[in-house]
Amino acid sequence: MIKARVTVTLKNGVLDPQGKAIEGALKGLNFAGVGSVRQGKVFDIELETADRTRAQADLKEMCERLLANTVIEDYSISIAEGPQKPQDHET
Amino acid sequence: MIKARVTVTLKNGVLDPQGKAIEGALKGLNFAGVGSVRQGKVFDIELETADRTRAQADLKEMCERLLANTVIEDYSISIAEGPQKPQDHET
Repeated sequence: MIKARVTVTLKNGVLDPQGKAIEGALKGLNFAGVGSVRQGKVFDIELETADRTRAQADLKEMCERLLANTVIEDYSISIAEGPQKPQDHET
Repeated sequence: MIKARVTVTLKNGVLDPQGKAIEGALKGLNFAGVGSVRQGKVFDIELETADRTRAQADLKEMCERLLANTVIEDYSISIAEGPQKPQDHET
């Protein structure tokens, strides 16, 4: 079993209305010094394989075909070393 | 300027219909060996302060009051060391 985390975020320059709304809400709650907020998605995926190379390739294809809209979103895939939490690394 | 990433995920045991839908879609795209998919949110937040302790406290309060529904969600906060990408650590 392989545990992976896919993080999908909007590309720089793409307008993020949700992030803007949260920014406004935080300011409304009197949090000072909030510069910017950008919202994205994470997917914690368990794969029934032990082949890390195959898993990496499958995850990349999952992102390209379903999890991310690669026109406006970036994605990063991190595969857990073992029982620990996944460490981030760019694809 | 401090850059932080807040990751909000459903607690174990909480039903994740979105994750289930994605699981089904991935299987429909013939991805073999997909065990489970859980979806969460990430917030990339810029804070106009250099005080990391203050930032950590503010971010925790932001999570408790707005970003996470702590009844059903867990959150983790990672503050970037410098220009690099944020490293994950549990709160």
